[in-house]
Amino acid sequence: MSKVDKLKAALLGATGMVGQRFVKLLENHEIFELSVVAASPMSAGKKYRDAAHWCIEGEIPEEIGEMKVVKASLEDVKREGQIDFVFSALPSEVAKTVEAEFAKAGVPVISDASAYRMEDDVPIIIGEVNPDHLEIVKKQSRRGWKSFIITNPNCTSNVLILALKPLQDQFGIKRVLVSTMQALSGAGWFGVTSMEILDNLIPYIKNEEEKVEREALKILGSFDGARINPASFKISASCHRVNVLEGHTEAIFIELEAKASRDEVAEAMRKFKGKPQELNLPTAPEKPIIVRDEEDRPQPRIDRYAGKGMSIVVGRIREDPIFENGIKFIALGHNTIRGAAGNAVLNAELAVKEGYI
Amino acid sequence: MSKVDKLKAALLGATGMVGQRFVKLLENHEIFELSVVAASPMSAGKKYRDAAHWCIEGEIPEEIGEMKVVKASLEDVKREGQIDFVFSALPSEVAKTVEAEFAKAGVPVISDASAYRMEDDVPIIIGEVNPDHLEIVKKQSRRGWKSFIITNPNCTSNVLILALKPLQDQFGIKRVLVSTMQALSGAGWFGVTSMEILDNLIPYIKNEEEKVEREALKILGSFDGARINPASFKISASCHRVNVLEGHTEAIFIELEAKASRDEVAEAMRKFKGKPQELNLPTAPEKPIIVRDEEDRPQPRIDRYAGKGMSIVVGRIREDPIFENGIKFIALGHNTIRGAAGNAVLNAELAVKEGYI
Amino acid sequence: MSKVDKLKAALLGATGMVGQRFVKLLENHEIFELSVVAASPMSAGKKYRDAAHWCIEGEIPEEIGEMKVVKASLEDVKREGQIDFVFSALPSEVAKTVEAEFAKAGVPVISDASAYRMEDDVPIIIGEVNPDHLEIVKKQSRRGWKSFIITNPNCTSNVLILALKPLQDQFGIKRVLVSTMQALSGAGWFGVTSMEILDNLIPYIKNEEEKVEREALKILGSFDGARINPASFKISASCHRVNVLEGHTEAIFIELEAKASRDEVAEAMRKFKGKPQELNLPTAPEKPIIVRDEEDRPQPRIDRYAGKGMSIVVGRIREDPIFENGIKFIALGHNTIRGAAGNAVLNAELAVKEGYI
Amino acid sequence: MSKVDKLKAALLGATGMVGQRFVKLLENHEIFELSVVAASPMSAGKKYRDAAHWCIEGEIPEEIGEMKVVKASLEDVKREGQIDFVFSALPSEVAKTVEAEFAKAGVPVISDASAYRMEDDVPIIIGEVNPDHLEIVKKQSRRGWKSFIITNPNCTSNVLILALKPLQDQFGIKRVLVSTMQALSGAGWFGVTSMEILDNLIPYIKNEEEKVEREALKILGSFDGARINPASFKISASCHRVNVLEGHTEAIFIELEAKASRDEVAEAMRKFKGKPQELNLPTAPEKPIIVRDEEDRPQPRIDRYAGKGMSIVVGRIREDPIFENGIKFIALGHNTIRGAAGNAVLNAELAVKEGYI
Repeated sequence: MSKVDKLKAALLGATGMVGQRFVKLLENHEIFELSVVAASPMSAGKKYRDAAHWCIEGEIPEEIGEMKVVKASLEDVKREGQIDFVFSALPSEVAKTVEAEFAKAGVPVISDASAYRMEDDVPIIIGEVNPDHLEIVKKQSRRGWKSFIITNPNCTSNVLILALKPLQDQFGIKRVLVSTMQALSGAGWFGVTSMEILDNLIPYIKNEEEKVEREALKILGSFDGARINPASFKISASCHRVNVLEGHTEAIFIELEAKASRDEVAEAMRKFKGKPQELNLPTAPEKPIIVRDEEDRPQPRIDRYAGKGMSIVVGRIREDPIFENGIKFIALGHNTIRGAAGNAVLNAELAVKEGYI
Repeated sequence: MSKVDKLKAALLGATGMVGQRFVKLLENHEIFELSVVAASPMSAGKKYRDAAHWCIEGEIPEEIGEMKVVKASLEDVKREGQIDFVFSALPSEVAKTVEAEFAKAGVPVISDASAYRMEDDVPIIIGEVNPDHLEIVKKQSRRGWKSFIITNPNCTSNVLILALKPLQDQFGIKRVLVSTMQALSGAGWFGVTSMEILDNLIPYIKNEEEKVEREALKILGSFDGARINPASFKISASCHRVNVLEGHTEAIFIELEAKASRDEVAEAMRKFKGKPQELNLPTAPEKPIIVRDEEDRPQPRIDRYAGKGMSIVVGRIREDPIFENGIKFIALGHNTIRGAAGNAVLNAELAVKEGYI
Repeated sequence: MSKVDKLKAALLGATGMVGQRFVKLLENHEIFELSVVAASPMSAGKKYRDAAHWCIEGEIPEEIGEMKVVKASLEDVKREGQIDFVFSALPSEVAKTVEAEFAKAGVPVISDASAYRMEDDVPIIIGEVNPDHLEIVKKQSRRGWKSFIITNPNCTSNVLILALKPLQDQFGIKRVLVSTMQALSGAGWFGVTSMEILDNLIPYIKNEEEKVEREALKILGSFDGARINPASFKISASCHRVNVLEGHTEAIFIELEAKASRDEVAEAMRKFKGKPQELNLPTAPEKPIIVRDEEDRPQPRIDRYAGKGMSIVVGRIREDPIFENGIKFIALGHNTIRGAAGNAVLNAELAVKEGYI
Repeated sequence: MSKVDKLKAALLGATGMVGQRFVKLLENHEIFELSVVAASPMSAGKKYRDAAHWCIEGEIPEEIGEMKVVKASLEDVKREGQIDFVFSALPSEVAKTVEAEFAKAGVPVISDASAYRMEDDVPIIIGEVNPDHLEIVKKQSRRGWKSFIITNPNCTSNVLILALKPLQDQFGIKRVLVSTMQALSGAGWFGVTSMEILDNLIPYIKNEEEKVEREALKILGSFDGARINPASFKISASCHRVNVLEGHTEAIFIELEAKASRDEVAEAMRKFKGKPQELNLPTAPEKPIIVRDEEDRPQPRIDRYAGKGMSIVVGRIREDPIFENGIKFIALGHNTIRGAAGNAVLNAELAVKEGYI
């Protein structure tokens, strides 16, 4: 696609860690062009290169580095020229107002913020899991909005839900317990000081367990044309921060509805594909779930970039007599790619292909 | 007690990390005197100072540093003079033969090795949990042994079981799921290379899950005078290594028999005491379980030395709707003190007080 | 000394990391009693326990934990009752005004802040190195001050200067190059984020090289009764942050005036003592410099608490043909004890013994 | 170049960390094909995939993963078919015999081992620094060898020497002091245990300082057609291990012959190019030295992959009054790419282009 035909996207919250992932993922994107970088008033007016504390692998794309950052408001973004939609990596408290402003004015919002996730008429989309939920955005017109907001799940939820989906489809799920070992980047650049985490771990992440427990049921719920009916299984999370840069690791214990052997679970995960793979979307990984047979994998440093950070990696699948149809395993995913920016880019691709943008 | 009246102990496996903890705990011990340090043939003949790669806080006790290491065999240890009992921190494969040799010859063995743990006539003792199991050592005479072996649980089991005991007593337990974040020292000095763990975690520890699942049921089982009947609840473990020097952290999910509120659980743990506290044993912590109310504790670097490493620390107690009477919390304990050398020293103190040594 | 006879000290900047070290060092101090804890307006009014984010080993002393924090101003501190002097761990920009306020009002200030270090009439004291410089505080009366300020060197300088002192005395120094590997705590709790230092190092510490280069010459200079004449050798520093909690390690290359063998250097350091040792001051370590012969020491995690954090540890002394009389070695010291709070407490003890307080 | 025309290389020591880097660098190489992987007898007979404990980024190239590892001996390698030359990443003690065996039999050896580095007739080559030293390999025929050995410098030397070369050429060098902060990978997978380096550093690396001091002078020496005359400046190294995966950082202090400003030094480094750039060799980085102006760079995690790991990165260039013409700066390079496998591949490319292979 020639550059002139690409869809123009603005990026709100462009300077943070997730913002930087967006910038990298949109570099040379097949159908999107990043045409505006927006952030807080403090960054506005600076070159992106100077405003962002660049901290991910690879260099800032030359052109973006030189771009002027504008304030993340409808007015300031529009002044920069025509855009087709926005990506939002805004902090949740800011997202509430700003995202609505864009949606109201007819600009689709593909958001990584948590502000609207649990609203009835807003879908939380994982392309491989619940692409049919997209349709609920039509209900947002009742808010008086000319366009809509599509949200991402929380990064921890994303990894978990991808692992659960083939099991839900094939065996049914009664109960899920998940204990996480989450990476530092999930808390942002300034989130965890070095003095608190060296030779240590922190067995608490504010609001995380609640998010995981709620979002999973919504995303794995069914859309009946009118509303999303949450999945009815039970879920319990215990969330912990460990001294790892990127990649959330999750120990997952599941009570299935139907009996499934270790091999049947592995097989269900290995063959799992979704709409992004069918539609051959640019950011879709070939395999959403990679199952490894080594006894000590997945490991975050080694496996986080599987499928360019868009695949999750599952290992150590074991039958678990704690439940009648018990199974346990380890899942790992890249929290700022699959768990954030990458999932949003995939959502935008899906929304375009399905005619929403 | 004057030095001449102290019980003389030999330490088998004195040079390793757990061996070093024994050395420190026995420095100025009220009733024990470390009189022989024994290790592998490679170390035999060297000064302890030169044989041990000292790696724990504090200095080698001057007198021990100058002691000559002997080979960990009955013959070599006996040649050094009269001893009253031995502590064993031997590798399991060596322990099998060597510990039996001592027990047969009439020397009590207080062991941290796993070799004999699951034998029917060998107790795994946590002083606060199952001191009554001690009596089963009498059955070991059927082996033709003049004395006996008392074992320690695995370090991860130890922390878990201490946390479970007051709940078992007061509310009953139906099911336990535990997901661990274990310290490097659990694998020994050479166990984990720096290249494999930096910016990483390893979601697998060989044989650990099996040990935790088996040992907990035996220790929390009941001794009927003839044999130990394992507890009948179900248990499932997922064990993981993280980049922390000392201190195992465990996320524990429990289905109780009877309903218990968050506060009732905290209260049961806080008031929990056992025989070591009753008998005022030298190594007994004042509180076996310390409950913290901060939202982000326990943390290994900060809490591992609670009760001089002999208390476990519990935090984040939450009611958990995943089960009818669900409860979840975080527990942490020092893996080479409470989880190894300290527990063994406490066992020896108990065995003395109860007349076994 | 009964509590009633102890000198009463206020601590300005009590909640930060150096403040916490002061609190610990003054717990059960022989001749000082911490009677007021003062900090920023944000902390004022809270209990110390709630205001301080306690992050060093050991617990907050019970009594201090319950103390109310007051604002770090003369007025607020005085309102709490009579004090004999203040310790200051204030940020430099605040220290400039507040410390002067106390000195002017007749309250001696023992400061760890850098604000006044390079003033002509203010001494930077290391008890073992330049106790005679104390006398220059008398000149501060020209400022219209009824009392005086005594300062500490920067933490990196402190370690370096202690190592240099016996060499300067015995062999003379022509040139010093120092390359540091500094601990995280030197930057304070929030100074270094985990994301910037994991699997990384930062080869830059703002203003540090300048401080080291200036302060060393002043402290090793001579006081002629009127002024301090800086030492005349040359010094160059390169300062770097590494992923270590506490303990600054320094690779030091020296051109001596006179030839000295490896053994002569070791001997000079080993026998080195100063006024604090002569006067048997409570916080004085028995040996200001501990020389180790192992080929791989000193190491921060293992050696930082030598002499309760008040000794520096030197190792790997080698003759160095790069210079005619070249010598190189590694020195290590605890940056928040010897390099900060501990040095200040020692200075206060010295000032009392010498009649200044 | 079609695969059939590529030069066939055997790789000795293929399973270690440097061996793995060779495997990655030779994947899809323009003119070389890796046709034999050889290692210790313990690995021989296994698939490469099973013999190597793969630990670097990216996957094992499919074809190599399936290759059978042979014993690293002339006989075993030859049995696999015709080869044009060998790369050696053997341990030094093995390299002494095995490399000679190949050279004697007419197979050129491009080695990363230290065994032959300091032999008079063996060059240590950095393509950008001393390509003219290659010619000395002709002298090796006196050993009765039909072919020759070309060696790599030690990884630490490599970074240092690249930084020194433009300064030597343009300003002359009198004295160099270097203090290193070296990555874990330099010690190999099992070289540093996690327990010794977490919250720590080790201020000693066996034999490293001697290697750096000797090799730099040889490589920066002049070849007069008969022998290499070492450079005559003085050099002193202090070498330290820090908790970083890859990338050696070096604080370098230099006394130049002629005055040079900060900008002149930066300019000399920026414009520096060598034969590999002239000849446009496949593995040559566009810029051997990248100079950064930020005050806190280079940093290993961020800068080690500059120029695909073949560029060194220099920052913090400062004039240094410690010497008449003093200059100091920080240099960083990827120790297993530029410092090992990458340099060897570049040497092989150079040797081919210059007609030696």
